[in-house]
Amino acid sequence: MIRREVTEEASSEAERPDLAAMMVRLGRALTAAELPVLRAHGLSMWAYVVLLALDEVPVRSQSALAEAIHADKTRIIGVLDDLQERGLIRRSPDPSDRRVRLLSLTPEGRRLRDEAQAGIRQREARLLDHLPPAERATFLQVLRDLHDRPWQDLTGEA
Amino acid sequence: MIRREVTEEASSEAERPDLAAMMVRLGRALTAAELPVLRAHGLSMWAYVVLLALDEVPVRSQSALAEAIHADKTRIIGVLDDLQERGLIRRSPDPSDRRVRLLSLTPEGRRLRDEAQAGIRQREARLLDHLPPAERATFLQVLRDLHDRPWQDLTGEA
Repeated sequence: MIRREVTEEASSEAERPDLAAMMVRLGRALTAAELPVLRAHGLSMWAYVVLLALDEVPVRSQSALAEAIHADKTRIIGVLDDLQERGLIRRSPDPSDRRVRLLSLTPEGRRLRDEAQAGIRQREARLLDHLPPAERATFLQVLRDLHDRPWQDLTGEA
Repeated sequence: MIRREVTEEASSEAERPDLAAMMVRLGRALTAAELPVLRAHGLSMWAYVVLLALDEVPVRSQSALAEAIHADKTRIIGVLDDLQERGLIRRSPDPSDRRVRLLSLTPEGRRLRDEAQAGIRQREARLLDHLPPAERATFLQVLRDLHDRPWQDLTGEA
């Protein structure tokens, strides 16, 4: 009966949904919000994730990319083929091991990535713009700090 | 090249991951963090979700419950059977329509739900307790306000 014995102030916090439940609902909804923006740029979610990952670390092997985005290596081959055909990414053999193919963004790929992300940020802004600037900044800072923590910190497996 | 032309202050915000990406990672990690706590109380995630939903709206038909928790009706029958056998929920025929079975928490079910949630809150607290109280309160308030918005507001489908 823990929830029923607390003071009123603490109660309002205890009555909130669990953090995981809030994050899962928001993750699903905000992912759904991204899809029309991505579609308008001719991108699937996987294609966008690939462009983001190649912007973050400019040159990667296909295996390293697949691992970084938690995708099955075979699953993203079609995505990579399509992005290459459209001139958004380059695939070139690794000079030190010609069996390995290195991926990188083309300037066109970077431009499309930036445009798609700008569209996504516009939608996000609509959800956050009613907040006083200090609250908005605090919310985003705490969210980002949590996001940047090692996985084991978040799951408590450590 | 939007990201590269902004001022330094705005840049640090523009450089953050998209909201959806942060929420999805945190949703996965915090769900993983709940599992050992739930296991220690003999609960699967679905069983916990059922107990939470029956605490929120005390009496529901099986169909209404399944809809509320976005579960397939047939999928949760085994979960309900198990909870009933353990004396955590009651199933009784609806007096107005005997084909409908109404579900509700037993006192034991409420106790287990409260204990499991208290364990989950302890883990969550470890992630948030280093924050100054005002920041922590702002973060949780903004997160909860977002979580409570209608789905169409969040997805921008409205």
